[in-house]
Amino acid sequence: MSQQKHIFHHSFSIKKNDREELHGHKSYILWFTGLSGSGKSTIANLVEKKLHEMGISTYILDGDNLREGINQDLGFSSEDRKENLRRIGEIAKLFVDGGIVTLATFISPYASDREKVRKKVRQGEFIEIYVKCSLEECENRDPKGLYKKARQGEISNFTGVSAPYEEPENPEIIIETNQKSVGECVQQIINYLKHNGYLGN
Amino acid sequence: MSQQKHIFHHSFSIKKNDREELHGHKSYILWFTGLSGSGKSTIANLVEKKLHEMGISTYILDGDNLREGINQDLGFSSEDRKENLRRIGEIAKLFVDGGIVTLATFISPYASDREKVRKKVRQGEFIEIYVKCSLEECENRDPKGLYKKARQGEISNFTGVSAPYEEPENPEIIIETNQKSVGECVQQIINYLKHNGYLGN
Repeated sequence: MSQQKHIFHHSFSIKKNDREELHGHKSYILWFTGLSGSGKSTIANLVEKKLHEMGISTYILDGDNLREGINQDLGFSSEDRKENLRRIGEIAKLFVDGGIVTLATFISPYASDREKVRKKVRQGEFIEIYVKCSLEECENRDPKGLYKKARQGEISNFTGVSAPYEEPENPEIIIETNQKSVGECVQQIINYLKHNGYLGN
Repeated sequence: MSQQKHIFHHSFSIKKNDREELHGHKSYILWFTGLSGSGKSTIANLVEKKLHEMGISTYILDGDNLREGINQDLGFSSEDRKENLRRIGEIAKLFVDGGIVTLATFISPYASDREKVRKKVRQGEFIEIYVKCSLEECENRDPKGLYKKARQGEISNFTGVSAPYEEPENPEIIIETNQKSVGECVQQIINYLKHNGYLGN
């Protein structure tokens, strides 16, 4: 038998609710899902800025700090995408446990992967935000030139072009970035948080 | 080419120093290393409690929340231990970036693995705490009955018995738990943090 079977649970004194009390607000995940180019990072950045100005402790998990760090061993195969999201879900859970409002911006095209993250935390701690934007509009924006490359076959398994995107069926929030301004989308999220008691004291 | 080569860096507005300012203190890693039974979790728990009482945002990473979460796919082979610590290091780095004082309690027997974590963060952000206790004393305490099982061959690759422990050569702090009381050890760490400007405003 290896050491693996012998994990003992230490009882630590400081718990999630102590950290929430110190920070003056609840902790939860704001999960931004949507096509590449839909505006996930832009919106999340501005939401984080607003929350920070209100004195709320926040952190953003995104491709930048994960794909080049903990998930640098993973590619974009279906299996690696699953493992990528599994780890992201576990990290988001740790941050929530740490009393932090955690913003996560990932295309996360599969409903089942998003549901797995939802189930890792308590009810009400996973707020799914569908950043909705038509493929046409995303492709028209193409801020990174990725759609063009995907159409030319230079990138494979590209969500919306050569890989599926499963729309959320019951997200807590839907923001339509090709119908509303960025400012309106941000305000819609802040309003949701306010009206549902997520903004603390 | 897959999507992998196309990571773009979004420029987020809220940075580490903004989060440190909000929390009123710097963020860094307190890395507790030492044999099983040396007292890492006991000491870390009490240090966290003290820091929390001072209004400092903290989080503990330990076997409980990692081995059963993000690292549940890993065993105790030399390779898996390395990967375990690599991921822990990456997560600790994210927490430090999030403005959190991060306590990590892991046997972490190999100096090279600990050094890799140190190199992930900036100078002064990795405080190595060697929780020093003789093997005899740890084995005598044997709070989890693991040494007994290791001696009987029921557990393989057990640090100190059938796997090496490399003592830190230049740790920031050495606490000797078989020479001092728990309270004295905790105070020694708090004093270090105080005298080196780690306790904030």
